[in-house]
Amino acid sequence: MSRKRGPYAKSDHRRSALSEAALRLVREKGHRNVVVAEIAELAETSEPTVYYHFPTKESLLIAALKQHDDENVRAPGAEAGAIADMGSRAEIGVRRTNYARLYNELAGAAADPDHPANEFFQQRWARSIEIITTDIRRLQTAGRVPPDLDAETTAHLLLAAWEGLQLQWMQGPQFDIRARIEGHIRALLGPLAID
Amino acid sequence: MSRKRGPYAKSDHRRSALSEAALRLVREKGHRNVVVAEIAELAETSEPTVYYHFPTKESLLIAALKQHDDENVRAPGAEAGAIADMGSRAEIGVRRTNYARLYNELAGAAADPDHPANEFFQQRWARSIEIITTDIRRLQTAGRVPPDLDAETTAHLLLAAWEGLQLQWMQGPQFDIRARIEGHIRALLGPLAID
Repeated sequence: MSRKRGPYAKSDHRRSALSEAALRLVREKGHRNVVVAEIAELAETSEPTVYYHFPTKESLLIAALKQHDDENVRAPGAEAGAIADMGSRAEIGVRRTNYARLYNELAGAAADPDHPANEFFQQRWARSIEIITTDIRRLQTAGRVPPDLDAETTAHLLLAAWEGLQLQWMQGPQFDIRARIEGHIRALLGPLAID
Repeated sequence: MSRKRGPYAKSDHRRSALSEAALRLVREKGHRNVVVAEIAELAETSEPTVYYHFPTKESLLIAALKQHDDENVRAPGAEAGAIADMGSRAEIGVRRTNYARLYNELAGAAADPDHPANEFFQQRWARSIEIITTDIRRLQTAGRVPPDLDAETTAHLLLAAWEGLQLQWMQGPQFDIRARIEGHIRALLGPLAID
């Protein structure tokens, strides 16, 4: 894509600043305790400007989820190692309590396809499955995972279990989510998939 | 437990009637479209009586979840066959669109331990894990599942994946959830676990 100039670049910059401010305040205070005026203040803009870009608080919260993924999800070409990292990332993820509560609440609400967060979650699953599938195929090529395993189906199962385990951990009681996820990886991909 | 008599029995009966009415209306119309007055009418009682038993609409919706499980979850001693049924039950579950949307929304919200649905989900996970663990042990005794497999850990993974798959199916795009779950069972428990 060509680099945007002038008013469009400025608008993109404003949106990014608002997304970053929303994410930072969600992490600090929890999404229920964040008000739009604070997001405006942190992003050094006015409330009307916020509402021009994000008409509802919910749309700002969805922007916070996207911002989090922009900072955390592997870029195309950087999939190698994603499986080895799943356990530790899950462990970090559940300890980001405020962020994880927002994530789980919007994920549940997005089970209704008319919910404004639905598109985000559809795209997130697609990209996550792509990342894990790519890493399984790399391990198959390296002879560390059986070649007859269906990479995409297995990626789907690994991610679905992660999603369910994270939700159950948040609801409680807590357990060793890293060990559970790494045990799952070994059970599905074989003992050589991770060190 | 001894059988309740008199006013307590009547109160229990009223609560059951309200839970059943709430569940029926959720199934028919979706929880966002149900109003407390309709639940009162269907249960043949007054709105003040509803609020006496269930102070908020949300508490009625949680009662609807419990009612659904009372009708659908295996009783102690009836765990045999639970694993063989997982795939078909998942397939039925995602097609109960209105109920599944309520379930997912409250499950996500219950990631906050202060949410009023949290206790329900904690108890639900505990009972579900118990059911699947019991059925895995039965299959181990019958020689259909390897004896060294940790039954409880595997039960947890099977249920977590079901939870995540159901959520992703609801968010879309849809896929063959029965085949995915039965493939997972065979991958974790071995080819003889289900027919």
